[in-house]
Amino acid sequence: MISYWADFPGMTEAIEKVSGIIRDASASNNLVISERISGLLDGNGKMLRPGFLLIAAGFGKTGDKHYQLAAALEMLHMATLVHDDVIDDSPLRRGLPTLHTLFGRREAVLIGDFLLSRCFLLAADYTSPRNALNLARIIATICTMEIEQNRDRFRSNISLRGYLRKITGKSALLFSLACFVGAYEANAPKVVCEKLRRAGYNVGIAFQIIDDILDYSGDEGLVRKPLGRDIAAGLVTLPLICALPLDTSGSLQKIFSQNTFSPDDSEEITALVRKSGGIEAAGKFAALYTNRALREIGLLPPGKQRDMLEALVRRLLIREG
Amino acid sequence: MISYWADFPGMTEAIEKVSGIIRDASASNNLVISERISGLLDGNGKMLRPGFLLIAAGFGKTGDKHYQLAAALEMLHMATLVHDDVIDDSPLRRGLPTLHTLFGRREAVLIGDFLLSRCFLLAADYTSPRNALNLARIIATICTMEIEQNRDRFRSNISLRGYLRKITGKSALLFSLACFVGAYEANAPKVVCEKLRRAGYNVGIAFQIIDDILDYSGDEGLVRKPLGRDIAAGLVTLPLICALPLDTSGSLQKIFSQNTFSPDDSEEITALVRKSGGIEAAGKFAALYTNRALREIGLLPPGKQRDMLEALVRRLLIREG
Repeated sequence: MISYWADFPGMTEAIEKVSGIIRDASASNNLVISERISGLLDGNGKMLRPGFLLIAAGFGKTGDKHYQLAAALEMLHMATLVHDDVIDDSPLRRGLPTLHTLFGRREAVLIGDFLLSRCFLLAADYTSPRNALNLARIIATICTMEIEQNRDRFRSNISLRGYLRKITGKSALLFSLACFVGAYEANAPKVVCEKLRRAGYNVGIAFQIIDDILDYSGDEGLVRKPLGRDIAAGLVTLPLICALPLDTSGSLQKIFSQNTFSPDDSEEITALVRKSGGIEAAGKFAALYTNRALREIGLLPPGKQRDMLEALVRRLLIREG
Repeated sequence: MISYWADFPGMTEAIEKVSGIIRDASASNNLVISERISGLLDGNGKMLRPGFLLIAAGFGKTGDKHYQLAAALEMLHMATLVHDDVIDDSPLRRGLPTLHTLFGRREAVLIGDFLLSRCFLLAADYTSPRNALNLARIIATICTMEIEQNRDRFRSNISLRGYLRKITGKSALLFSLACFVGAYEANAPKVVCEKLRRAGYNVGIAFQIIDDILDYSGDEGLVRKPLGRDIAAGLVTLPLICALPLDTSGSLQKIFSQNTFSPDDSEEITALVRKSGGIEAAGKFAALYTNRALREIGLLPPGKQRDMLEALVRRLLIREG
């Protein structure tokens, strides 16, 4: 969704440049690959991670390599989406049929691997060895957290701390890296890089919490994916964690008395989470992390970049009012 | 199968060291991951790629990093096996149940991703930037070739050239890289590195051809995986490519008259390939590449390393007589 960036001076062109690099990096003799990845790019992704990286780069001296690194991060993100969809057997993503629905699981796994390898290729080529290492570490962490999340399916004894740990690994580290790497590779002052790293971390946490809230409360047309999928897949997210102590009827506790639950309970759980105020409570956490992000951003050197970053965070995280 | 290396002085210890690094690299707070990867390591893999890398390193000065790089290559190999088994829905690997059979597709995809990311992590940490790039390129090529192979399933019009291209990408490049990187990172003379690269390439081609032959002719107990899986999955490999012009009965041509075939034809195709001499003809190709590998090895500086490499290649590629 390139139009997402229309209000941000220069960003539409920058994001288009990143798309072009991804298309080039996936152009090979193999038409299947280029077509599939082109299809993913046309699928209206907001290109948030490249956007954060490029805005952060503006705190130093932006160069060609930033576009390459932005492309690497987006390819990593695309790889995780493709594999997630295979794993979850999701029919839709951003309102469009998922890759494995169209072309089979087999091809989707391989396209994901291809994207991962291209991500590393760009990172190895354009980043400092230190940041290539950081990236490899983060990918390993993303996988670890996904594996943990998978292991914990249908277990109800998920703590707030466990949840935060998982979404840090799944989402926040990548936003954090995007902001840090953008500034670091642009030779921005160290203190600016560190502030951006923290801002990115808080943005990532808030972003994931909001995503998890929308799975309970969203408008299917707006979210562009089916609702209630998390709980049906056995994932315990923040609205439910918040709802447990709030549900005075005791019905939630009863469902979870065995520390496990079944997919058949999904509808009842969803209704109880909404009724007990779990969504509003989770919203307060999202606001907390959003405010932390905005505070870090407020400490950055004033100017166009800071304004743009603030505007982006507001649009992204305060979208639901 | 560490005993595979018993006749090679020092190699059993070296391979055990590599196993230890892989176990360490997969040890995390997450017990699921370490257990699964430990299970894969216990699964009697020969650790061929680490073996080639370490023997090649002996042409220069072997250091700690070689064990790390050997571990990286083996983790890459393990990742491709795990994803291949998910993709092909194979029940067995090396005579043991595959990961996704034991723990589900979901976890197998993620463990594969984790192994890939750890492979990059070790490569980024211990190799020169040039070789980290080479590795990322090879992984992208492996994926590309797998995607091509997938696209070509049940198409019978596969040329010898197309087949060689695919197995180069799927197998030969990784053997070639193992030999080259081992020597290069040990500061072996350039001419030695290049000879090893070519030797590794020819070993990889011969190895894959023999693997493809065994799927037609092997002893199930010895191969430790079910036979005839390639053709049942729609893969046209060298024995069939060789059999087509040899089959004087015209039955193979008839099956392939539409340029496609069906899984129902597998048994008949297998019988016809055996009868027409396709296996022997493919064996000649394997011998050709084996001899090329041995010729390159013969041009290396004489001594213990060269003898070991030659003995390994003979054991690996002339196993069927």
